[in-house]
Amino acid sequence: MSVGGGGGGGGVASFAPTPPWPSGAAWIGGRYCPVEEAKISVLDLGVTRSDAAYDVVHVWRRRFYRLDDHLDRFSAGLARLRLDPGHNRAEVEAILHGCVRLAGLREAYVSMTCTRGRVPPGSRDLRTARATFYCYAVPFVWICTPEQQAAGVSMRISEVTRIPPQSIDPTVKNYHWLDMELAQLDAYDHDAQLVVLRDASGAITEGPGYNVFAHVDGRWVTPASGTLRGITRQSVIELAHEAGQPVVEGRLSADDLRRAAEVLATSTAGGIMPVTVIDGQPVAAGVPGPLTVQLRDQYWLRHEDPRFSTPVRYEEYK
Amino acid sequence: MSVGGGGGGGGVASFAPTPPWPSGAAWIGGRYCPVEEAKISVLDLGVTRSDAAYDVVHVWRRRFYRLDDHLDRFSAGLARLRLDPGHNRAEVEAILHGCVRLAGLREAYVSMTCTRGRVPPGSRDLRTARATFYCYAVPFVWICTPEQQAAGVSMRISEVTRIPPQSIDPTVKNYHWLDMELAQLDAYDHDAQLVVLRDASGAITEGPGYNVFAHVDGRWVTPASGTLRGITRQSVIELAHEAGQPVVEGRLSADDLRRAAEVLATSTAGGIMPVTVIDGQPVAAGVPGPLTVQLRDQYWLRHEDPRFSTPVRYEEYK
Repeated sequence: MSVGGGGGGGGVASFAPTPPWPSGAAWIGGRYCPVEEAKISVLDLGVTRSDAAYDVVHVWRRRFYRLDDHLDRFSAGLARLRLDPGHNRAEVEAILHGCVRLAGLREAYVSMTCTRGRVPPGSRDLRTARATFYCYAVPFVWICTPEQQAAGVSMRISEVTRIPPQSIDPTVKNYHWLDMELAQLDAYDHDAQLVVLRDASGAITEGPGYNVFAHVDGRWVTPASGTLRGITRQSVIELAHEAGQPVVEGRLSADDLRRAAEVLATSTAGGIMPVTVIDGQPVAAGVPGPLTVQLRDQYWLRHEDPRFSTPVRYEEYK
Repeated sequence: MSVGGGGGGGGVASFAPTPPWPSGAAWIGGRYCPVEEAKISVLDLGVTRSDAAYDVVHVWRRRFYRLDDHLDRFSAGLARLRLDPGHNRAEVEAILHGCVRLAGLREAYVSMTCTRGRVPPGSRDLRTARATFYCYAVPFVWICTPEQQAAGVSMRISEVTRIPPQSIDPTVKNYHWLDMELAQLDAYDHDAQLVVLRDASGAITEGPGYNVFAHVDGRWVTPASGTLRGITRQSVIELAHEAGQPVVEGRLSADDLRRAAEVLATSTAGGIMPVTVIDGQPVAAGVPGPLTVQLRDQYWLRHEDPRFSTPVRYEEYK
C-alpha cells in the first residue's frame, strides 16, 4: 500500500453533515470554535515559560491511530508536570472526536495541550495558576510529502546539542524546541530537509518531531534515551519484530548513520520517512531501502486494523 | 532610599488624561488593546515550539530603567534567532512608551516579544513563517515583595540541571523555562521562595528570572556563564565597583553559596533581593547583609539618574 494511496491530505469528506470549519476546529475555553479563533493570552505561562505538556494523534481514513497510546502519554506528561486540564480522559477523548467532526476531516492532525495557565495579576506564585486546556484538529500535515518520501529525503547531523534529559524530560512531550528550530534553519542552509541532534556525548537523539532508526550490522538501531518515545517509533519496533527484522534500542552514533544500509525517521506527522542522504552523502545506494519500504507499507495498513485504530465519531456532536 | 518608599506597586497615576487600561495595555497585530485581549494563535510557533526572543524593562517613578540596554539585548537576541519583528528600534521604543501611557502606570513591567509566528496552513517550512510581534505594560511585578525583601528570602539549590548553553544560548532571553518551573515547584515543597539551578558540572547558573551573587572570601562572585546577562546583574557589578566592593564574574559553587557572608538575587522584576536562607540554613547571621542593603539603596537611586533612565512619554500617544 502506497503512503499516498487513496488518502490524500486533509480533504473535506462529504459524509459529515455540513462540517462548519474545514480548515480546522478547536476546543478552548469550554467551547468549540474555528481553529483561527483559538488563541491564548500572551500572559499564559504556556507562552511566557513554555510550561505545558501536549500530544498529537492523527486521523487517517476516518480513524484515530493508536489514540489510547497518545492519551496514555499525555496523561503521564500531565502528572509529571503536575498539570490538571480539568477534564478526565473520556472528556478529552470526546473533545478530540468533536474537533475532527466539526472540521469534517477524513485525515487530520489532532492536538491536545495543557499549559500551567495564568496566575492572578501581580502574582508570581505558580501554585496559584489555573491551567489552560485546548485541543484542535487541522488537515493532516506532512513533514515530508509522499512525493518527497518516494524519492527519499536528506538529513543533516546538527552541531547543536539537544536539550538533555537532566534539564527537560524528553519523554514528556513538550514545546522546548528552540535548539531544534535553530538546527533546522542551519539544515536548510546546508540543503537538508531534516535534521537530527546529538547529546553531549555525541550520541544521536532526535529531530524536530521525529525519531531516527538506522539499519547497521544487520539490525535496526534507534536511540534508547534522550528522545521522545514516539508512537510511530513504537510502531516501527513492533512491525520490525513481526517482519523478523532485529531491532535494538541503544546508542546510535553519527558514524552509524553514515555507514548504515538504511536510515528512516518516524513521526505522527509524516509516518515513516526514508532518509537517503546524510550530510550531503548518499546512504548506501541513495534510494529508499527495501526494509524501510516494507515497514512503511505495513505501518499504513495498520491504520485500518481495529487493534490500533478507532473510528472517529463523526455524527455524535451536533 | 527604601525600596518600598514612595513608589508603591502599580497604582494608576493621575497625570495621564484618562488612561483607558489601568490593568495593562498591549500592542499586538498592529494596534493597542487592553492586555486581557492580547492573545496569540495556538498555532503560533512561539507557542508550539517556544521559538521566540523577548525582553522586559521596567518603569519606576515614571521612568524606564536602562531602556537602551534592554533594547540592545532584544535586538541581539532577534539577530541570533534570525527573527524580524517588522519594526525598527525607534518604533519598538515608541510602542513601549505607548503601552505604559495607555495603562497610565507610574511603575510598570514592560515586555516585548517576537516569535517565529505562523507558517501557512500545511507547511512545516520555517522559512515561510511570518513573525508575531507584541508588547505589553502591566503593573510592576515583585518576585518578592518589599516586605519579604526586608526580612530576607529563602532559596533552594535545585537538583534540576539548567538547560546548557550548548542547547539554548542563555544570553538570548527566551521562554525555555520548564526546567526552572519544575525546580520552583520543588522549592515550594521545601518551603523555599527562590530557587537556583546548577549546570552539569555543579556550578551555579541562575534562577527563574534572576541572577545570583555571593560574597565569599571578601569579594562578590557571580556566574560568568550559563546564565542570562541580566541588566540588574550589570547594575550590581557597576555599583559594587563604585562602592569599592570587589566583584568577580567566575565560577560559583553550591558550597560558595552556603559559606557566603551575603547572598543576593537580581531581577528586573524584583531588583536586588537579599537571600538569607539557603536550603533551610541561614546565610551567615540570617539577616540581609550590609553590603546588600547598600547596593540595593544605590540601585533604586539610579532610577532617577538620567544616565540610566528615560522619562515615559505619557502625553505623546493620544
